This record gives sequence, C-alpha cells and structure tokens, in this order.
Amino acid sequence: MTVITGLHVHDVRFPTAAAGDGSDSINKGDYSATYVELTASDGTVGTGLTFTNGRGNELTCAAVEALGRHVVGHEVAELCTFEGARTLTADVQLRWLGPEKGVIHMAAGALLNAVWDLRARAAGRPMWQLLAELPTAELVAAIDFRHISDALTPAGAAAILDAGLAGYAERLKSIGETGFPSYTTSVGWLGYPDGKVRALSAQAVKDGWTAVKMKVGGPIDDDVRRAGIIREEIGPDALLMMDANQIWDVDEAIANMGRLLAFDPYWIEEPTHADDVLGHARIQQFLGERCRVATGEVAANRVIFKQLLQAGAIGVMQIDACRVAGVGEVLAELLMAAKFGVPVCPHAGGVGLCEYVQHLSFFDHLRIGSPLQGRMVEYVDHLHEHFTDPVTIVDGRYRLPTRPGYSVELKPESIATYSFPEGPAWSA
Amino acid sequence: MTVITGLHVHDVRFPTAAAGDGSDSINKGDYSATYVELTASDGTVGTGLTFTNGRGNELTCAAVEALGRHVVGHEVAELCTFEGARTLTADVQLRWLGPEKGVIHMAAGALLNAVWDLRARAAGRPMWQLLAELPTAELVAAIDFRHISDALTPAGAAAILDAGLAGYAERLKSIGETGFPSYTTSVGWLGYPDGKVRALSAQAVKDGWTAVKMKVGGPIDDDVRRAGIIREEIGPDALLMMDANQIWDVDEAIANMGRLLAFDPYWIEEPTHADDVLGHARIQQFLGERCRVATGEVAANRVIFKQLLQAGAIGVMQIDACRVAGVGEVLAELLMAAKFGVPVCPHAGGVGLCEYVQHLSFFDHLRIGSPLQGRMVEYVDHLHEHFTDPVTIVDGRYRLPTRPGYSVELKPESIATYSFPEGPAWSA
Repeated sequence: MTVITGLHVHDVRFPTAAAGDGSDSINKGDYSATYVELTASDGTVGTGLTFTNGRGNELTCAAVEALGRHVVGHEVAELCTFEGARTLTADVQLRWLGPEKGVIHMAAGALLNAVWDLRARAAGRPMWQLLAELPTAELVAAIDFRHISDALTPAGAAAILDAGLAGYAERLKSIGETGFPSYTTSVGWLGYPDGKVRALSAQAVKDGWTAVKMKVGGPIDDDVRRAGIIREEIGPDALLMMDANQIWDVDEAIANMGRLLAFDPYWIEEPTHADDVLGHARIQQFLGERCRVATGEVAANRVIFKQLLQAGAIGVMQIDACRVAGVGEVLAELLMAAKFGVPVCPHAGGVGLCEYVQHLSFFDHLRIGSPLQGRMVEYVDHLHEHFTDPVTIVDGRYRLPTRPGYSVELKPESIATYSFPEGPAWSA
Repeated sequence: MTVITGLHVHDVRFPTAAAGDGSDSINKGDYSATYVELTASDGTVGTGLTFTNGRGNELTCAAVEALGRHVVGHEVAELCTFEGARTLTADVQLRWLGPEKGVIHMAAGALLNAVWDLRARAAGRPMWQLLAELPTAELVAAIDFRHISDALTPAGAAAILDAGLAGYAERLKSIGETGFPSYTTSVGWLGYPDGKVRALSAQAVKDGWTAVKMKVGGPIDDDVRRAGIIREEIGPDALLMMDANQIWDVDEAIANMGRLLAFDPYWIEEPTHADDVLGHARIQQFLGERCRVATGEVAANRVIFKQLLQAGAIGVMQIDACRVAGVGEVLAELLMAAKFGVPVCPHAGGVGLCEYVQHLSFFDHLRIGSPLQGRMVEYVDHLHEHFTDPVTIVDGRYRLPTRPGYSVELKPESIATYSFPEGPAWSA
C-alpha cells in the first residue's frame, strides 16, 4: 500500500513569446508548466504537469495546492480509480469554479498524472506499457462514466478493451520497429515571415516529414498566400493541416474554408470557439468529405468530447494529456473515440505535451487496437532539452518510450533556471 | 474621462456549510465572494463580486489580480465596450486557462461588473436604469458578438432594443407599483429534514409566495416523498420548480423525471452536466410540454447559452450576473433569449446574486420589452444583511431598486468580520 506523503508544485516558465514560437491568431505565450512532484511512502517520486501559456501559471499552481488535500495522505491505488479521481473533480466547494473545466480541472490533471506516474515507476513500466498490460477491469475502474453513460457504458468500454487484446503482440513488434506516425507544427507559426515559412517547409520535407501543420486565422489573403507557399514546398502528396485557434465565427469559418480548400487541407483545427459543438457540426457538414474538422486541445472535459462525437462534429479528435483530469479521463476519451470510429491525433507541443501524449497514442494503437491509418501525434521541436526522458523522433515518427513513468520529469537545473519569478531566466 | 486608479480584492467567506443552507446534490458550500473595489480618478468607488462556494475563493481573487493590468490605468468608458472587455477575456496568455470559463472568466465578471458599477454611480442611476436609458448603439457596443454572430448580429440586437423602447414609460409605471415576480428556494434544500421542509413550505405560502423551488437528486424515493410534502403544502395552483444541480446522467434524468412529473413541476433545473447541450435537448424533447428544462447558473459563457437556444434544449434560461464576463456578456445573453423567445429567470441566492440580478430582470422587462409572463427572479433569504443596498421583497415580488449602482456593496464591518482567513469569523 503506497501512500502519497508529499506534494511540491513549481511555477516554471520559458520565455518563448519574444521569439514568436507558439504564436497564432489567439495566443502569444511564454510556454509554462505547473509542475507537480509527489513523494510516496515507498520513497519514489512521481511528476506531472499541466501546460499553460505564461501569465496565470500561478493560478494553476494555487489550484494544485487547493486540491492537494485530496492527494496527500491518500493511496496511489485509490487515486487511480474513478472514485479517487472524483474526490478532486467533484469537491463540494471547488467544483463550483469549473465545473470540470479551466484552472481547477487542469490542476487536477497535473496531480492525477503525477499519481499515475508514481504507479508506472513503481511498476517499472513506461506509461503506455503499464496501461496496455492492465486487466480490462482495472482500466474500466479508472474511468468516471458519470455524464457520459449515454455514449459509453462500463460494459461497452470493457468490450472495446477486451477486443483490443487480439493482435497485441504483433502490433507491439511492428510499432517497436517503425514508430508512430507524426506531423510537425514547426513550419508555419503566424509570427514567422514568409521566407522563414518557406525555408522551414523545405527543411521539413528533407527531415522526412510527410505531414505538416500551419496556422491560419490572420487576414485571409495572408493565410491563402502562406498556404500556397507551404503546399509548393511540400508537394501535392504530403498532408497539410490548418489550425485557426478558434479565431473565426461559424459563418466566417465556412467562408474562409471555402477559399482554403484550394490547398487540399487534410483537417481544419479549431475553426471556431472550443465550446461550440453545434458550430463545429455545421462546419463539418459544409466541408463534408473534403476536409475533416479537428478539435480538442482546449476541450474542457469528456462531456464536450462526448457531444462532438454524438453530433458528428469532428473527423479527428485531438485529446490533450493534461487539460482534463489525467489518465482516467483520457481513457474515457480514447474509448469514446474508438466507439464512434473517429481517429485520435493528440495535441502536443507546449511544454512536455509530446512527452505525455506519445504514451497515449501507443496505448490507443496497442491496447484499444486502433489502426495507424489516419492517426498521428503532433510534434513541435521546442523545449525537449529540459526533460530527463525526451521524445525520440526518427524519420518523422515517434519511437516507443522505454523508461518507467510518464516522461514529464524536468531536469533540476531547468526547474531552477526557469522558476518564476525567482529563477535567473526571469530575475535577470 | 474617468480612469481607474486602484484595485483592491477581498476574500470574503460566510460559514454556511455547517447549517446545511445551500446544500444540494453536488454542492455543500461556505458561500463566498471574490469582492472587488475599484477606485476611479473622480474619487468614486465601484464594487463588484463573483460568487464562489468557499474553498478556492483564493483562486478567483488571484485571477482578479492577474487581470488587473487590463483595468487599472484604463478608462471606464473604454472598458464598457466590447473591445475593452475583450482585453480581459482574450488576454493572449490567460485565455488558455479558460477559454472564457471558470476561474478566469468569473474574475473578469467581478472586475467588469465593478467597472459598470462605477459608471452607474457616476451617472447617479441604479444599474437597471443606467442600462435602460442608454441609446441602442451604446448597448450594442458593449456586446462581444464574436462566436455568437450565427445567432445574433449587431443589427439584430439593435432591432430588438429599438423595438423595446415602445411602451417603456407604461411598463416602468406598472412595475414600480407591482414589483417583479419572484420565487423562493428557501424551502427545500437537501440538507433539511422533512419536518423543516413542510414547515418552510407552509410558511412560504403564508408569506405570499406562489412559486417555490426544491432540490432533487438524492435517492429518487426521497425526492418523490419530499415533492409530495411540498405539493401538499403549497396546493395545486402554486408553481413547484425542481433543481437537480447536474447530478443525473441523461438517461437517469429522463427516468427520474418520469416519476417526478406526478407532482407537476414547472421546470427541472440542471438535470445533467452543465456543458451537455445535447443532453439537455434530449431531456427537453422527452418532457415536451409537460415540463421545461432550465439551466444557466454555471453555463460558462455566451457560446454555451447560444447553443442551448439553438438546440431547443431549454424552456427557461437562467443567467447569472457574475459567472460570465459582466454586464456586456449578460446583455448578449438577454438579447439571444429574446430572439429565441425563451424567458429568462436569473439565478440568484449565494452572496449578492439577488442584489445583482434584480437589475437585469427589470432591464429585460423595461428595455427589451419582455413580458412578465413566465419570468421570475430567484430569491433566497440568506446574507442580505451584509449589503448596504439589499433587495426589498414585498408579497413575493422584488421592488425596483432606487440607489445608484449595481447593489453589491458589502458593509465594511461584514468584510472585516468574514475576510478569510484573518477575519474573526474564521480566525476564532
């Protein structure tokens, strides 16, 4: 019986805004982490984080402290069940501040992911493997079906997981050799001038990428011109994804996509406000087979994902590892996507998001049995050097992680340098 | 030109949880206020608050501080336009923590309501009157139509407001004499034993109430028994509303309402998760003409309300004065409700919510021209004694407020006593 005995939270911020990295139509961020260290009674340390955009990282840090009472003094095993997770997500006072969304839900995600990291380390397994080898009943017990039972029941989840056991060994052998498909978002940030976009696009092709993503949502003529540059460089066969970061109204999204369809986008990501399920459905209806609607990086919780699936609003589901309440809620999302037949392409980038979500996509393929077809993990080449177990990309594909845990442990020197506001990166 | 020169935020908490007041199937709160005081260059002080449930009030207070940079040093007039409000709701870094929901959005609401309070005080008008007398163009300029233009355009909003001018003087005379219809939520908190529920119901009838609300969402047999007690006491003609506070899954709500329909409920409030637009629509479809679905007290923003209306998911729209980004966003919600023909019955109770929303309903009736039929303001008889300009209820109806401002100024001695954690109510 392993009990959590200590909690420490760090406000870690990287000064990325000045360089234009990560700039888009809505955000201009200093990529940051609300970084959680949990100490357990057996001496192990688990780490988790939630990603923020700079200002306000102190709020998610404070929310971690507020939720800490449900973690410190409690058992790891208990917190890996839905009842344990629900002590955080349904606190009779804190829930009012969401419910299950924004600051408090992201804090719950950082904490619960750190709990699961402890469990994986204790088992000596990388997270994908810990999850893939768990009995179906234990995976189902981690999922809170409240408010999603009209889309997925425990029995329905178990059936998907049981069926996924077939062919596990073969898929593991194969993926171990080839890695998981990916795409890069490093070519087309809105803050980059045309020349840089062209050069980065050409370089991406040389580096083996066959799928790239650009930001849209500036003046539409600029978007059209930049799309033309990238399509020229990557050629007609590579996939080009577009990301509007919610800037458009629904009718505006439809009008603008009418022009951008000329560049054969594979998906349009976040075409409108993240909460607008019906709006996404209208846009997907307009696009039909020509282009998929993708969203999810700021989808607040499993209830939003449920509706996106029920409404036929998305052709690609983009889960995030730490906006929702950790591993248990992500499992619910992966299984709903499988049930509705929508491929999951996780959101990554930021701080540690690539490190996190690789585990989820490997699990999706290996244990749920989702085919690789149409599935990719986002890749952004920022800030990996600060992690003790960074992702490995070979020829545009993620390699299977091998070290125990969830891979979001920051190096002590990075924490020290980038702690806000006292670290030398900020106090200087 | 009035500029905001100072910001002070107080963490004020009332120890209500112990008494069972405010207890329901999801919440057990120490009713609290993130209380904002703004000082202006002309010497006036404006106050605003957002309501929270106790733990975590420090998070909304910290979010007020984080957003303060967009308020202090800026003009009142500028912040009363949508562009000014958007500096808070679309901060390029803080937006990630919502977007437009939860802790940061509630903080924006407290701040922007304090700004509007400054404006009303400077004009020597109660908020309902300030708003009702504004030219249509100024009201429209306060609304951020981004992400709702598929439901309401500036021209559409202006048309509603222009049409609402007809009959204003007659309605003002009439409502000044009769007051605004209300209902009481004080009879049926889940924490109350049957005998107390019966006594309070009988007393409510004696006090002139013809509409009462009970909490449901406990064991269904208990809900049925308590509904029977209340219906017995209030008689067949009084309105009985029920409130599940989101505890049910969609299919569970449909099954339980199948039993509770026997007590002729006027509405079922928050039958399932607040984010579940499609779920509310299914429940409303099941109930048909027999009972209205009502929700809104934790609806995150105008985009959620837009969808509830577009989907035909609600028969009553319950706006909140301070969960969304203040007066401007509430105006958007009132006008969308008018456009879709759904009556607004604001959420109140908590701390200062009755004081706030009376202004909004009077504005809805007087300036938008919404008939009184089907409209009521919630009333809960808690904590009014802490306000300098508390609501006045006569025979179960709200009387028109007359003092300048938005009526949420706390008494200095109440702030001192209930400040958390240093006030004597908490340090003792």
